[in-house]
Amino acid sequence: MSTLCLAIHHHGFDGLQPVRRTLPEPGPREVRLRMRAMSVNYRDLQVVLGTYHTRFELPLVPLSDGVGEVEVVGEAVTRVKPGQRVMLAFWERWVDGRFQPGEAGSSLGGPRDGVLAEQIIASEDRLVPVPDELTDVQAATLPCAGATAWNALVASGGLRPGEVVVVQGTGGVSLFALQFAVMAGARAIVTSSSDEKLARARELGAWGTINYRRTPQWAAEVLALTGGRGADHVIEVGGPNTFSQSLQALRPGGQVNIIGYLGGTEGMINPLEIFRRPAVVRGIAVGSRVMLEQVAAAYAASTLRPVIDRSWPWTEAAEALRHLQSGAHFGKLVLTV
Amino acid sequence: MSTLCLAIHHHGFDGLQPVRRTLPEPGPREVRLRMRAMSVNYRDLQVVLGTYHTRFELPLVPLSDGVGEVEVVGEAVTRVKPGQRVMLAFWERWVDGRFQPGEAGSSLGGPRDGVLAEQIIASEDRLVPVPDELTDVQAATLPCAGATAWNALVASGGLRPGEVVVVQGTGGVSLFALQFAVMAGARAIVTSSSDEKLARARELGAWGTINYRRTPQWAAEVLALTGGRGADHVIEVGGPNTFSQSLQALRPGGQVNIIGYLGGTEGMINPLEIFRRPAVVRGIAVGSRVMLEQVAAAYAASTLRPVIDRSWPWTEAAEALRHLQSGAHFGKLVLTV
Amino acid sequence: MSTLCLAIHHHGFDGLQPVRRTLPEPGPREVRLRMRAMSVNYRDLQVVLGTYHTRFELPLVPLSDGVGEVEVVGEAVTRVKPGQRVMLAFWERWVDGRFQPGEAGSSLGGPRDGVLAEQIIASEDRLVPVPDELTDVQAATLPCAGATAWNALVASGGLRPGEVVVVQGTGGVSLFALQFAVMAGARAIVTSSSDEKLARARELGAWGTINYRRTPQWAAEVLALTGGRGADHVIEVGGPNTFSQSLQALRPGGQVNIIGYLGGTEGMINPLEIFRRPAVVRGIAVGSRVMLEQVAAAYAASTLRPVIDRSWPWTEAAEALRHLQSGAHFGKLVLTV
Amino acid sequence: MSTLCLAIHHHGFDGLQPVRRTLPEPGPREVRLRMRAMSVNYRDLQVVLGTYHTRFELPLVPLSDGVGEVEVVGEAVTRVKPGQRVMLAFWERWVDGRFQPGEAGSSLGGPRDGVLAEQIIASEDRLVPVPDELTDVQAATLPCAGATAWNALVASGGLRPGEVVVVQGTGGVSLFALQFAVMAGARAIVTSSSDEKLARARELGAWGTINYRRTPQWAAEVLALTGGRGADHVIEVGGPNTFSQSLQALRPGGQVNIIGYLGGTEGMINPLEIFRRPAVVRGIAVGSRVMLEQVAAAYAASTLRPVIDRSWPWTEAAEALRHLQSGAHFGKLVLTV
Repeated sequence: MSTLCLAIHHHGFDGLQPVRRTLPEPGPREVRLRMRAMSVNYRDLQVVLGTYHTRFELPLVPLSDGVGEVEVVGEAVTRVKPGQRVMLAFWERWVDGRFQPGEAGSSLGGPRDGVLAEQIIASEDRLVPVPDELTDVQAATLPCAGATAWNALVASGGLRPGEVVVVQGTGGVSLFALQFAVMAGARAIVTSSSDEKLARARELGAWGTINYRRTPQWAAEVLALTGGRGADHVIEVGGPNTFSQSLQALRPGGQVNIIGYLGGTEGMINPLEIFRRPAVVRGIAVGSRVMLEQVAAAYAASTLRPVIDRSWPWTEAAEALRHLQSGAHFGKLVLTV
Repeated sequence: MSTLCLAIHHHGFDGLQPVRRTLPEPGPREVRLRMRAMSVNYRDLQVVLGTYHTRFELPLVPLSDGVGEVEVVGEAVTRVKPGQRVMLAFWERWVDGRFQPGEAGSSLGGPRDGVLAEQIIASEDRLVPVPDELTDVQAATLPCAGATAWNALVASGGLRPGEVVVVQGTGGVSLFALQFAVMAGARAIVTSSSDEKLARARELGAWGTINYRRTPQWAAEVLALTGGRGADHVIEVGGPNTFSQSLQALRPGGQVNIIGYLGGTEGMINPLEIFRRPAVVRGIAVGSRVMLEQVAAAYAASTLRPVIDRSWPWTEAAEALRHLQSGAHFGKLVLTV
Repeated sequence: MSTLCLAIHHHGFDGLQPVRRTLPEPGPREVRLRMRAMSVNYRDLQVVLGTYHTRFELPLVPLSDGVGEVEVVGEAVTRVKPGQRVMLAFWERWVDGRFQPGEAGSSLGGPRDGVLAEQIIASEDRLVPVPDELTDVQAATLPCAGATAWNALVASGGLRPGEVVVVQGTGGVSLFALQFAVMAGARAIVTSSSDEKLARARELGAWGTINYRRTPQWAAEVLALTGGRGADHVIEVGGPNTFSQSLQALRPGGQVNIIGYLGGTEGMINPLEIFRRPAVVRGIAVGSRVMLEQVAAAYAASTLRPVIDRSWPWTEAAEALRHLQSGAHFGKLVLTV
Repeated sequence: MSTLCLAIHHHGFDGLQPVRRTLPEPGPREVRLRMRAMSVNYRDLQVVLGTYHTRFELPLVPLSDGVGEVEVVGEAVTRVKPGQRVMLAFWERWVDGRFQPGEAGSSLGGPRDGVLAEQIIASEDRLVPVPDELTDVQAATLPCAGATAWNALVASGGLRPGEVVVVQGTGGVSLFALQFAVMAGARAIVTSSSDEKLARARELGAWGTINYRRTPQWAAEVLALTGGRGADHVIEVGGPNTFSQSLQALRPGGQVNIIGYLGGTEGMINPLEIFRRPAVVRGIAVGSRVMLEQVAAAYAASTLRPVIDRSWPWTEAAEALRHLQSGAHFGKLVLTV
């Protein structure tokens, strides 16, 4: 049996080429999925372009995020049944509890082949049923960016109603963080260089917005907005250059979650700034399967839905990645089968 | 200097009589408050009627919950300023962290004189500024019932978006629990013997409702509503007779918060039921001052407001208590000055 | 390929009979173990005698606790290598985080065949390497009773140096709780009906001891020993009859861990006792694989070793179970291959 | 009524001069203490020399750490009685829960007059009874350095038996961290530039030692000692220059506690190092009164005692500070009255 997929044959958008692959039978605790939707992340763009910090062996089927329908289940499978719609968690075996890289198993879309295919084989350990309340494309946006924002704010951060969350930018993780803050009864302050994006953030429920181009020292603005108190949580995606502002925007004891480095990887801080605030700073390694289950339950209980910018047929994944690279999007870019 | 107050001279509604009391100067860390609003709790009713489990010395000024304006501050006061509107936390010295009865200091309305007065002297330790977003009467409902529900669900329970909360009844603590569940993106299931009250609970955002008169084995209904999964949190106000249902309504690992005993104090359970679920069961001793601050911040960030059934002039406190005793109310009963 | 095992053919000690079983090839994520030691638990006794609350299908190979050497690994195994000594965690798939019965997988020794065999097939998910510091029989005592005590006191209870732990009795879980309290710098108070056992508990580091036959109201004695403060944690193994004493022995906010019911399953309490203390009460469902790893690391870092009462050849398992039933033991009963 | 104290009249050791001060009557919730012992901290040295990051108004009585006997209590005091020996917590009003600078009240020895006096007036809020098991000088070492190490490892860090703690150096906080690790059943790895100090650390129970002069890349040595796993906790006192080593010495998910900056305040790190590990990094602001109570209870339950290098009469405080500056000490420097 074989399936059509898109694989990276060489780095660059044009290196993403269709190919038929043989599909093995599912092992005892594996299932075969017929993919229905995928979404693209910044990591996928880096993997395709060859700029990711790790180089994976090629050819490689990219993309970690997707929703499929269970077609066939291995003999020992107990968690799902044929016909169910399921998401794939980023880590194969990080079910719950603390993150242990050696135990978490492979991530999809590098080093293991990902979900940009008509059919795939997957371990039942990483499957999360899609609630009826969510469509395929909505659910396909959650595994990587949704679980990351949830891990930072809710699972690790213990977000409570009435707290203040600073969300840097309007990328994938950031819009999820904004929505989780709104769901959880918190106040979100969003920063961006685009007034248009800030206006859309307001429509999504942002309580405050700051254009960091006009207000580069945006920490002072966060303090002003909160009556001098400071933020409880910061979603830090900008890298070293924004980190000092993040610390200064915090209340004493507040938390900075380091998610990534869209602002570049160069730049330094003095760690005594963490001591003086004092602050809690943590790195976030996406999230566990249980966190993804909680994200799904949270959306099912809410009227909010993941923000989707635009959709393409799955075979046009390169177009979606190009659009992601342009930075013109607001919300997730999805692919449908 | 003297002030007018209502004090319990003997037990019973008619024992609540006006009296003038001398008001001492505030100590170094005390303030004088001009009261603006109060609210009544079931505990106050018991204290007035003499049915509370502890008997306090009479005459006693009852009521723990109120809002006043700071008139005069002692020389060492740093937390508030004249002119500020403040709530009074239930415990004088339980600021934050864990509850230690010996350290928590006195509660108002027994053993210490309470807030049913035109002016009172209070320690600054228990004062919480009222946010601009809340009126006097709204804020006056929060100290006892609001902090209790917050302690149970949020501070101790770690409530998250998407979780399921079972709220027994529509009394003071229960309606706060319902609103905190809604604020925090959770699903609330409310039980009551009155379809009319259940209809109002739905208007307030309850996701599910159960008439426990028609469905005495309501745990089965909770399981049905949650697809067999069970509730994450139960607000248990009914006493021993409802406790078994509460345990059966839980998911494994779920939490029961024991708040009180409106359903009577007689009745027994086998503690192995806690082991078999397994469940976490905890007693809730109102809440700390920091929890009350968090409640205020949560309402300030929300469009929800405390549910108020009816208001009386403060000198008609006995009428409010009679109404509370009737059980006909839905929401808090408040007094204005 | 076949292996020798002892299986329950009918309930009763004489129903435990040797039988050869065919051993399948390990699946992709399974291993074949050559067993080197086992230990018996009260649950095993109940399963053999047919008094366990669940009836399993017979014939059944009993026993959940054991240590084996990895002989053969499936093609996808990454966690262990041939030649390693490993323990088997009680739950197949409860790796870390919270307990979810539907996800935890089967327990050994019922419903799945257990470890009373020369060789077994096991999922790599439940394997924990034995540290060099521990012998086979020492490690074989840990999976069920050790992980249970660790879950209660350390993982769920957050035990700290200087706290006070009340340990009921000197059974398997209780002696582990005593040792973890000693390791963690806490003070342990042990109760027993036997002065001789109490003397041995003192040798193991118990700070206080109470003969509950002479002092049936032992909660008062706990208060006296702690200067009126009360205990931080209670290991409750006695069932309903001891539960009231456990609550009364607690400091406000203290924790009772319900582990089992050696004292019988009949008896009732009024749940308002939990409210009035206030207390936290939780049921403990053994422990996760990560907890078992932590137990192993704790012993490896300590000079303490699991307490072993007596050892038999594995084929004499019935004798070990008879000895367990007699209650004459102090420490774990182990079997060697 | 007046008392003798030493006050800083100008910066420098010779600026510390005896002076008589008028002692007011204790306020309602204050006590008068007759001091019996004090200890000096690095912060005190900086305050005396004028190198502390904040400049306080002079003259100032320095020192935050001490033990006194209660002589007189204010009319509303409930927490202590005349005759009791008590320690003074670093923060006046940080009783429990989270640190809030605006609420924590003043610290002693700057901005408020400290304990280098025969008698002082203190708020009962900051008093902690000294357990019988501890002498005056032992208890006098705990308030600042002991509570800091406890906050980092136990209260915030949740230290468990079997974990690995890296302790930088052998200063005040570091030796407490070493002892708490030993008490709690953890493995401590101590770094120092002095083989002699490392030998003494081993005598105190250090499991591993590293001379960072011979092994500047000591993180690799931590990984080697732990079989490649890394440390669970690092006590970071060295400032920016050691921070990268601290991160590299961690297991994924491990914690770095930033305590201070003995290694200097210059130096930078790239915050993405926190993301890549991933790590949790937190600043530690000494500790709460409840943490100090827990430290006292932990020593009372242990055979370990605070490490004291040398003692002087209290009027020779300048000598103690000079010795502290020399760096030749191993353990706390104490003063007796």
